[in-house]
Amino acid sequence: MKALVYSGPGRKDWRDVPDPAIQEPTDAVVRVDTTTICGTDLHILHGDVAAVTEGRILGHEAVGTITAVGDGVKAFAVGDRVLVPAITKCGRCSYCLRGMPSHCQTVGGIGWIFGHLIDGTQAEAVRVPFADTSLYAVPENVTNEQAIFLADSLPTGYEVGVLAGHVQPGDTVAVVGAGAVGLSAIQTTGLWGASKVIAVDTNKFRLGTALEFGATDIVEAGPGTRESVLAMTDGLGVDVAIEAVGFPETLQTTVSLVRPGGHVANIGVHGVAVELPLHEMWIHNITMTMGLVDTVSIPILLKMVASGRIASEKMGTHRFTFGQINEAYDVFGNAAAHEALKVVITPE
Amino acid sequence: MKALVYSGPGRKDWRDVPDPAIQEPTDAVVRVDTTTICGTDLHILHGDVAAVTEGRILGHEAVGTITAVGDGVKAFAVGDRVLVPAITKCGRCSYCLRGMPSHCQTVGGIGWIFGHLIDGTQAEAVRVPFADTSLYAVPENVTNEQAIFLADSLPTGYEVGVLAGHVQPGDTVAVVGAGAVGLSAIQTTGLWGASKVIAVDTNKFRLGTALEFGATDIVEAGPGTRESVLAMTDGLGVDVAIEAVGFPETLQTTVSLVRPGGHVANIGVHGVAVELPLHEMWIHNITMTMGLVDTVSIPILLKMVASGRIASEKMGTHRFTFGQINEAYDVFGNAAAHEALKVVITPE
Amino acid sequence: MKALVYSGPGRKDWRDVPDPAIQEPTDAVVRVDTTTICGTDLHILHGDVAAVTEGRILGHEAVGTITAVGDGVKAFAVGDRVLVPAITKCGRCSYCLRGMPSHCQTVGGIGWIFGHLIDGTQAEAVRVPFADTSLYAVPENVTNEQAIFLADSLPTGYEVGVLAGHVQPGDTVAVVGAGAVGLSAIQTTGLWGASKVIAVDTNKFRLGTALEFGATDIVEAGPGTRESVLAMTDGLGVDVAIEAVGFPETLQTTVSLVRPGGHVANIGVHGVAVELPLHEMWIHNITMTMGLVDTVSIPILLKMVASGRIASEKMGTHRFTFGQINEAYDVFGNAAAHEALKVVITPE
Amino acid sequence: MKALVYSGPGRKDWRDVPDPAIQEPTDAVVRVDTTTICGTDLHILHGDVAAVTEGRILGHEAVGTITAVGDGVKAFAVGDRVLVPAITKCGRCSYCLRGMPSHCQTVGGIGWIFGHLIDGTQAEAVRVPFADTSLYAVPENVTNEQAIFLADSLPTGYEVGVLAGHVQPGDTVAVVGAGAVGLSAIQTTGLWGASKVIAVDTNKFRLGTALEFGATDIVEAGPGTRESVLAMTDGLGVDVAIEAVGFPETLQTTVSLVRPGGHVANIGVHGVAVELPLHEMWIHNITMTMGLVDTVSIPILLKMVASGRIASEKMGTHRFTFGQINEAYDVFGNAAAHEALKVVITPE
Repeated sequence: MKALVYSGPGRKDWRDVPDPAIQEPTDAVVRVDTTTICGTDLHILHGDVAAVTEGRILGHEAVGTITAVGDGVKAFAVGDRVLVPAITKCGRCSYCLRGMPSHCQTVGGIGWIFGHLIDGTQAEAVRVPFADTSLYAVPENVTNEQAIFLADSLPTGYEVGVLAGHVQPGDTVAVVGAGAVGLSAIQTTGLWGASKVIAVDTNKFRLGTALEFGATDIVEAGPGTRESVLAMTDGLGVDVAIEAVGFPETLQTTVSLVRPGGHVANIGVHGVAVELPLHEMWIHNITMTMGLVDTVSIPILLKMVASGRIASEKMGTHRFTFGQINEAYDVFGNAAAHEALKVVITPE
Repeated sequence: MKALVYSGPGRKDWRDVPDPAIQEPTDAVVRVDTTTICGTDLHILHGDVAAVTEGRILGHEAVGTITAVGDGVKAFAVGDRVLVPAITKCGRCSYCLRGMPSHCQTVGGIGWIFGHLIDGTQAEAVRVPFADTSLYAVPENVTNEQAIFLADSLPTGYEVGVLAGHVQPGDTVAVVGAGAVGLSAIQTTGLWGASKVIAVDTNKFRLGTALEFGATDIVEAGPGTRESVLAMTDGLGVDVAIEAVGFPETLQTTVSLVRPGGHVANIGVHGVAVELPLHEMWIHNITMTMGLVDTVSIPILLKMVASGRIASEKMGTHRFTFGQINEAYDVFGNAAAHEALKVVITPE
Repeated sequence: MKALVYSGPGRKDWRDVPDPAIQEPTDAVVRVDTTTICGTDLHILHGDVAAVTEGRILGHEAVGTITAVGDGVKAFAVGDRVLVPAITKCGRCSYCLRGMPSHCQTVGGIGWIFGHLIDGTQAEAVRVPFADTSLYAVPENVTNEQAIFLADSLPTGYEVGVLAGHVQPGDTVAVVGAGAVGLSAIQTTGLWGASKVIAVDTNKFRLGTALEFGATDIVEAGPGTRESVLAMTDGLGVDVAIEAVGFPETLQTTVSLVRPGGHVANIGVHGVAVELPLHEMWIHNITMTMGLVDTVSIPILLKMVASGRIASEKMGTHRFTFGQINEAYDVFGNAAAHEALKVVITPE
Repeated sequence: MKALVYSGPGRKDWRDVPDPAIQEPTDAVVRVDTTTICGTDLHILHGDVAAVTEGRILGHEAVGTITAVGDGVKAFAVGDRVLVPAITKCGRCSYCLRGMPSHCQTVGGIGWIFGHLIDGTQAEAVRVPFADTSLYAVPENVTNEQAIFLADSLPTGYEVGVLAGHVQPGDTVAVVGAGAVGLSAIQTTGLWGASKVIAVDTNKFRLGTALEFGATDIVEAGPGTRESVLAMTDGLGVDVAIEAVGFPETLQTTVSLVRPGGHVANIGVHGVAVELPLHEMWIHNITMTMGLVDTVSIPILLKMVASGRIASEKMGTHRFTFGQINEAYDVFGNAAAHEALKVVITPE
C-alpha cells in the first residue's frame, strides 16, 4: 500500500510500504477512508518529537473500514465502519480504569501511539492494537467527514478545555486562540450552558469563524485584551479561561483573564518553559489544568453529532486526495493564510 | 488597651491604643485570650504587603471571649468563647455562597482583613465585623491552645493542601516543606485515607517532627529528591504533591514529584514569578491549585479535635505572654533554629 | 393593609390586617408588586399542612420593593426591587453553609417559613427576616413577571429535578408530569446538554406545552408508558427520570423508566407512603433523590433569564389583581381545565 | 474435577464434572486455591434466583492460580496468583467505561455471571471470561485468606455502602446489620474519616464484633433504635445510614435514622417491595442509593490490605476443605448461631 513516511526533519514521502497485518489476537486492520492532519504532525516534521524515528508512517486520526481482526477481537467485525481515535487503550491498566487512557501504561505509558510509537493513519490502511477497547463504531447517520474530527481535535477542545475547565451553566468563558482546537472548545461550551463565550485571537477571519461556532463575543488580541475581557465580566474576569495556542505569551494572557476562584484550562502544546506570575496567582485560588486528550468523550460527541447538536463537519474547510497529501500539508501548515481550519483527506 | 502596632518595615510596637468598639450592628468585640503569629506577619514586617499601612494592629488569629455585640448579631452573645479565624465573611456574596469566602466581595474583595485591611488580633481585644457569619463557637472540650491553630494554619494545610489536592483513599502524597503549614497538611491527609505520606525538607528536626505528625516516609531535600520519591512510588511519582514553602525552587521540585494525572497543590505564598516546565507538564495531565485559605473547614476540624482524631495542640511548641510578644516574634522568625513550629501568646 | 388570611381548612379571606413592621435589625419590609400561587398553597387550604394555623397570611413567592430595613441590613436599601424566594436563610448554620438552606436550622429547622411558620406574600406587604442573606436583587432587564417564577417553581424544577438528577450532556431524561414544576425541569435540562427530553402526562394540552418548553418527545401516560419510553432509549430506559406529580402511581411509573445506574429525581410532594419495588431496584444501582427546593440557583437562573436563555415569562398564563385573588385560586386549583400553568397576581 | 453443583431448590452436590477449558481467546482457567460462600448462594439454594438452572456450579468468589490462558490474554500468564472477583467485565461497554461493570452489557447485561449465568468458583477450577479486564493480581504480601474477602463482601460494603453513601470526614454513620457486609462497611468508613460509626443489630455477638471492626458506638435494635441514634447525633440523625440486611423493616429503620440532607445507602438484597414514608422523606432532601457491587475498588482495597490499613483476614471465622463444603454451608447458613462471619474453603 501507499503511506506518508517520515524521513527525518522536514522530509516526508508518500510512497509504497508493506501492507499492515494482524500481529496480535487483539489487533484489527482498518482501511483508511478519511484522514486529516494535526498540529502535532507539523511539530514532528519540524523534528521536535524525538520519539518519532525515520521510517515512521505519520498520522493519528482516521475513519475507515475494518478489513481484518484477530481472534481476540469480539466487539468489531470485518466490514464495520469505525473511528480510529488518537488514543489507543488497553482498558485494564490503572490509567484506563480511571478514564485517563492518555497515559495507558500498557500501550507505552502514553496512549498516543499512532504516527508516534507505531505506524499511523496517513496511509491506505493501519493496524490498530487493542481494537476492542480503542475503536468506536460510527453511527449510520454520521458521515466520515463529520466523524474524522472526533478522532482528536473536537474531544481535545471538549475534554482538555471545557471539561477540565469545569464549565458550568451560567459561566463566562474566554478562549484564547481560535484555531481548530480553540473552535472545538467554543463549539462545545454550549453543551454546559455557558452564559458568555469570548473568543480572543489576532486573526480577524478566525474571530469571525468563532462567532459562527458559538462565541458570543470576540476580542482582537493586543495590549488591551485584559481590559476588554474584564469590562465584559463585571471587572473580575471570566470563570474559565482556555488556552488553545501553546506559547508562553498566550498562556500568560490567558492567566490574566481569569477571576479569583476561576479555572485556567491549558490545551496548548508547549515547547518551552513558561514563567507564571505565582506571586499574583497564589492568592486568587486559581485551578490550572493541562493535558493530552483521553478521547473518552467520543461516545457522547458522536451522539451529539448524530442528533444534530454539534455540526462537526464545519471544521473541514479544504479537501484533498491521498495523492495530494503534500499539498494538504502546505495548506494546513499555513492555515491562517488559507483561511483553513482542518483538511479532509480521502482516497482518490 | 495594648496592641502590637506596625510602624513601617521592620518596626512594630506593643503599645497603648484606643479600645475597639461596636461600629456596625453586625460587629462583635472579642477579648483576646490566645493569639499566635503567622508567616504572613513576617512578610508584612519585611514591608512586602503594600496594603498594610503604618498604625495597623497586626495578627489574624485569635481565641477569645465576646465582650460586646451589635444589635444585628443573633448567633453569639457576650461571654461566648469563640474562634476568630483569618477570614471574615459576609455570608451572602457570590464567593461566600460558593464556599470561597477568601474572596468575599463585601468585606473588601478578599476575606483576609484582620491585621491587613483592619486592625488585627495581636491585641488585648479586637472588633470582628460580620460576627454572625465569621465567628465559630469553641466546643467545651477544646482548649484555647488547641483551637488557636484552627484560625489559620491547620485549615490552610487541610483546605489548600489536602482538599484542593483532592487526596483520596489509597493515594500517595508528598509534602514539600515541613513547617507549621506543611505539618498541618501531613496531619490531615490521614482523614482521607492516604496510603503513603512523604515529607520532604532540608531540616532534620522538621523531618523528625513530620513522622510524629503522620508522615510515613521522609526525604532529605537535595539533588536526589525526585529519584528518592519516584523509588517510593512505582517509578511514576506521587498522586498528590503539596508545596508548603513558597519559593520557585520548591515549587519546581514539587512539580517534579507528581505522576501523570496527579495534582500539585501549592500552599506556598510566593513573592516572585515562577518558571514552570510547561513543555513537560502539558502532556502529563497535571492539575495545579493554589490559594488563600477559606477557613470553611473549621467546623469539621473542631469536631475532629474534640473527638481526639487531630491533636492540634502539638503545633504549639513555645509559649509567651503579650508582654513577651517581641521575643515570640524572634523565636518564630527563626523557627528552624529554635526548633519551633507555632508560638502560643496569652495575656499575663 | 389587605392580605389573604387562612381561616381553617377550605377557608381563606382577603381582608384587612395590621401592616408588617421591622421586628429585628436583620428584617426588611417589602411591598408586594407581584405574587403567585403554588400547589402547596392548595395543600394548606385542604388542611393538609398542620403547621399552618388559622390567621396565617398565605403565600411564599413575591417580587416587590423594599419599604423599610433594619439597622443590620447592609446589602439592600429602601427602594430596591427584590425577589422574595420561598426559602429564608440565616447564611451561617451548617445547612446554609453546605448550600442546603431548605433546612436552615436558625429560621425554624426548615427554610420555608412564609405562609407557613410566619405571615406570607399574598398580601400588600411582607416582613422578610434575614433580609441580607435571603433576598435577591432583580436585574433591570428582568421584569416582575419573569422574576416571580424564580421564587419557587423554576428553581424547584431545576434544583430538585435537573441538578439532583445530575443531568449531564448527552443524557436522556424523562419528566413525569408536565405541570408548572415539570415544565420548569423540562425548560432547564437544556442548560446541561440533555440529548433527549421525554415529557409524560395524561393531559394533551400539557404535552403540547411541554414541546414548547423544550421537550424533544412526548408520551401520553397509560399502560404502555414504560414500553414507549424504553423504545426511545435503546431498550434500557432513561438516564434520569424526574417525578413532578406526587402520587404513588406516578412515582412507581417514574421508577420504571430509569436504566441501570440511572437517577430518579422526585420533585413531587407526597401525602402518603409509597411502595417501591426494591426487589427489582436494588440490583439496578439506582440513585433516588427528593427534596424541598433550596433556591440557591436563583442567581444563575436570573442570569439566564436576563440573557434570554430562559423565557420564564411563558409560565404565566393567567393574570389577576389582588382583588381577584379568590378567582385566581379557582383557576389555579383547576389548572388543567383552564389550560393554566401559573397565575400572576398584582395590585389593582 | 470436583465442583459444587446446584440441583434445584434445596439441593446441591459436591461431585465430578468435566474440567473447564479455554473457550475464547480472552479466557483464562484458574485453579481455585481458596473460595468462600456468599449470602446470595443461600438465596439461590432457596430457589429465589430464577436465572440459576440445575447443573450450574455455584460460587462467585475465588483466589487461585492460572493454569491456562487464551491467545488474547496479555495481562496474565500461567502461574499467576489472582483474585477472581464477583463481577466479570468486558472493559469497553458504556457501563464498564463509566466504572459500573455491575451492568456490563457484554457479559450478559449484568456483571455477576459466576455461579449465576456460567459455572462458578466453588470448584477445583473455573473458566474466567474476559480475563484481562476481570482478574486482579494478588500482591506477594497479601495472603489468599486476606484476598478472598475482596472478591465480593469487602468491596460491597465499601462501594455500595461507604462510597455510594458518600461518607466524608467528620460524618456520623449508622450501619444497620453487622453481618459480613455490614462489618465491611464499618471497617472501611475509617478510610474516609467518619467521626462516629454506630452499629445497629439485634445480635450481641455481632455488636461486639462491630466494635472490633471500628464501630465507635453500638445500639441493640428494638423499638428505641431511632431515639438512641438521634440522641447520639444532636437530635437530627446521622449523615449516612447504611442498610446491610435486606428486609422491609430494616430499610424502614435505616431511613428513620438519617438527618435532613443525608444519604441512605442500601446494600441489602431485597426479595419483596418496600413501603417507604415518602410523605415524610420528600421534604428531608434524602438521597437513597442501592446496587450490585462493581468491584472496581479492589485495587485500592488490595493496597490497603497490603499496607496493613485493613485487616481483611478478620472476616474469616471458620475454615473448611472442599470435602467439607456442605458443612461450610451449614455453618454459614446459620451464621449468627455459630458466631460466624465468613467461611474459608480450601483444597484438602
